[in-house]
Amino acid sequence: MRKKAIVLLSGGLDSATTLYIARARGFEVTCLVFDYGQRHHKEVAVAKRIARGAGCACHAVRISLPWKGSALLDAKMRVPSAPQAAIPATYVPGRNIIFLSFALSCAEALGARHIFIGANAVDYSGYPDCRPDFYRAFRKAASRGTRCGVEGRSVKIETPLIRLTKAQIIQKGYRLGVPYHLTWSCYRGQKRPCGRCDSCRWRAKGFKEAGLKDPALS
Amino acid sequence: MRKKAIVLLSGGLDSATTLYIARARGFEVTCLVFDYGQRHHKEVAVAKRIARGAGCACHAVRISLPWKGSALLDAKMRVPSAPQAAIPATYVPGRNIIFLSFALSCAEALGARHIFIGANAVDYSGYPDCRPDFYRAFRKAASRGTRCGVEGRSVKIETPLIRLTKAQIIQKGYRLGVPYHLTWSCYRGQKRPCGRCDSCRWRAKGFKEAGLKDPALS
Repeated sequence: MRKKAIVLLSGGLDSATTLYIARARGFEVTCLVFDYGQRHHKEVAVAKRIARGAGCACHAVRISLPWKGSALLDAKMRVPSAPQAAIPATYVPGRNIIFLSFALSCAEALGARHIFIGANAVDYSGYPDCRPDFYRAFRKAASRGTRCGVEGRSVKIETPLIRLTKAQIIQKGYRLGVPYHLTWSCYRGQKRPCGRCDSCRWRAKGFKEAGLKDPALS
Repeated sequence: MRKKAIVLLSGGLDSATTLYIARARGFEVTCLVFDYGQRHHKEVAVAKRIARGAGCACHAVRISLPWKGSALLDAKMRVPSAPQAAIPATYVPGRNIIFLSFALSCAEALGARHIFIGANAVDYSGYPDCRPDFYRAFRKAASRGTRCGVEGRSVKIETPLIRLTKAQIIQKGYRLGVPYHLTWSCYRGQKRPCGRCDSCRWRAKGFKEAGLKDPALS
């Protein structure tokens, strides 16, 4: 029987690459896709399509964060178009800890021992919930607060991209056949990527440094 | 300006007591109530009524856990009527870590520095996410994975009941005026409390040891 893993899938290039890494490692993958009221809501449909294309099970989880507190949730706040000092306005309070908590619940219920998340702490926006020490701390909380953890079958939090540059992520994904033409990164979620938000700029930098053309722009 | 706190409110007696403790400590409280597909769904309406009665703001958060894995979520599983060895079938994978993650998001967005949860590790069902070492580990993950945490304004996880017996909780609540006649504990969620599930038995033991009559049964 294949080992099971949960992959957090957003529809962006990091999480799509992470899905293909988990698959290449032989896991039977269940994807979790979150509809959390994000401005770039179109990523939800994109993520489902990527999961389907990879032949993986997929749960779409709808949550609401009515307290907002982020430019990705609040239409009255502006998505910054220039690089920001420190943590930008697109930071969503508690987002990755919420996503991981659902993944943990799903992993425990399905008997999966691995959760994959495409967090990256190199070419990134400075979000605190993308850094290695957060994942170490979360793993400890997960092992203390679950039946599987206290019974000695802790769930491992896998962050295969965390120390890669965006170019390295893209190069790895190309070798694995990630359908980058399907992925969506832009925070603005309009018809075409804006090319100016943080997420568009990191993506463009990655393709440029990898010496490749972004297939989503052709 | 009063300090803000988030209280996780389920409608049971522990969380109602916790709400009144937070209020007595002078906090401006926002309650979070979760509708997570629980069998005893009636606790959601009860919790809202208790929050309203206490004059507190309240967010009802609806989530789905389609992977189930608990007798509280899966109608095909039986709620045990006799005390269980180890962790019983009513354990919901990842429940408190999910609830705390939402509370953390809300706390950060509202600028609250305290989250109250009515976890108890004395007269309890043995759930791992009710134990002190889980809360210590979660607090560390919360401080590592949030903007407020990395900026030195960590959110404190308050567990004022964790080392009290059920009788001590009830006695404390009586002094604070907790409306125990409104609270609902039974896992079965039928018209009247079943009197046989774990939750009913802990409640009955608490009132008996406190030398009080349960006003919800009259």
